[in-house]
Amino acid sequence: MGIGPGSLDDITLRATRAVTESDYVIGVATYIDQISSLLHNQKVIKGVMGEEVQRAKKAIELASSGHNVSIVSGGDPNVFGMASLVLELLALQDSTTDVEVVPGVTAVNAVAAILGAPLSSDYAIISLSDLLIPWSEIEKRLTSAVESGFVIALYNPQSRKRKINLARSIKLLKKHRPHAPVGIVQNGARPGEMKAIATLETLMEHEAIIDMHTTIIVGNNESFIWKDKIITPRGYQRKYEY
Amino acid sequence: MGIGPGSLDDITLRATRAVTESDYVIGVATYIDQISSLLHNQKVIKGVMGEEVQRAKKAIELASSGHNVSIVSGGDPNVFGMASLVLELLALQDSTTDVEVVPGVTAVNAVAAILGAPLSSDYAIISLSDLLIPWSEIEKRLTSAVESGFVIALYNPQSRKRKINLARSIKLLKKHRPHAPVGIVQNGARPGEMKAIATLETLMEHEAIIDMHTTIIVGNNESFIWKDKIITPRGYQRKYEY
Repeated sequence: MGIGPGSLDDITLRATRAVTESDYVIGVATYIDQISSLLHNQKVIKGVMGEEVQRAKKAIELASSGHNVSIVSGGDPNVFGMASLVLELLALQDSTTDVEVVPGVTAVNAVAAILGAPLSSDYAIISLSDLLIPWSEIEKRLTSAVESGFVIALYNPQSRKRKINLARSIKLLKKHRPHAPVGIVQNGARPGEMKAIATLETLMEHEAIIDMHTTIIVGNNESFIWKDKIITPRGYQRKYEY
Repeated sequence: MGIGPGSLDDITLRATRAVTESDYVIGVATYIDQISSLLHNQKVIKGVMGEEVQRAKKAIELASSGHNVSIVSGGDPNVFGMASLVLELLALQDSTTDVEVVPGVTAVNAVAAILGAPLSSDYAIISLSDLLIPWSEIEKRLTSAVESGFVIALYNPQSRKRKINLARSIKLLKKHRPHAPVGIVQNGARPGEMKAIATLETLMEHEAIIDMHTTIIVGNNESFIWKDKIITPRGYQRKYEY
């Protein structure tokens, strides 16, 4: 289940109910902490980053023995979250355990709202983490997305150990969008939210707020800045007089 | 503000509060009906499809004269919703009216949850409506997204009057993904929800459930079907023993 960007304001009723009705709630500490006010009698298992496989197996084991278990993902569980891993493992066992995926507001949508209206049109989500996917694949996706006019959201732009992919991405993207507005939001809709608007040329001036809790939205060549917002026209102006 | 896919289970607390605290709630009848249980003393203005510009102008006029106004979008207001149009009009007037964009669960995430875990990896959203964007642009985006391995979500796949774009898209996509699983969900997370799993070869056998209320998710070449679910591996299997 997905808890949205992190504030309880942005969680859905269905996700809230899933948590409150669970026997076990499993997730990394950050997400567990974000929903702490929903935790009362549930047993809580805090996991650590990098141990997703163990966490998923533990959840399946508990669910298979009759417990009601929630596995918590930040944002939406389908978007670099736990849904696929849990279902892959269930499929391997050809399990008969009931499973429900509960959607949530994912970072691209939460961050777009904070920035105003940068998406509007077709968009692509690309994670810059090459932990599970080779960089050559990521590069190919960045190139095709920027060449064909997608608004692009970059997830996991850089970590303490991995900085080169963002630099490579900026170099690649700015050839096609030298003046496009770029929105940077760290801890979007959570305590400590930081936001900046830049271009690909000036993006790294905001490096202090770029880490694994940051989402970057690269507008297309029609996007523009107004006050503290990014607006990508939807195309109505081609059809209607304003 | 976005109300999510349509059931009040999938609306966020922030969107609920925005509606209940409004003086005016403005939107097309479908969305107004979906949130009818949240409407008490608010004045309601039901608009019609195709009159987005008038609706946005009316909302701005009311807000500028001091009223608290909610403009309702299905799903997320940044995803083919009203956010960009409202902000474009406000920017044209260089308005000082306060505006907040409230995110919601958009169709791709709601539908992905219904289908299981088809997204997992990088994905692209493409609307097949050529009302505001020329078909040549849409075709270019489809081609680049399928060639570079994105999971692809098709919004607005066909309307009563427009059927050719879906046929053209299938032809183009199936060259690259002849066996990829395709999920079709009509009225996702709403009354009348219908779902089918097919391939691009067999997609049109489900044409009865394909209209403007349908979202289609085209898996990548690693996606597979298990029971009634589509699973796109996230890549853990390359790194870990299951």
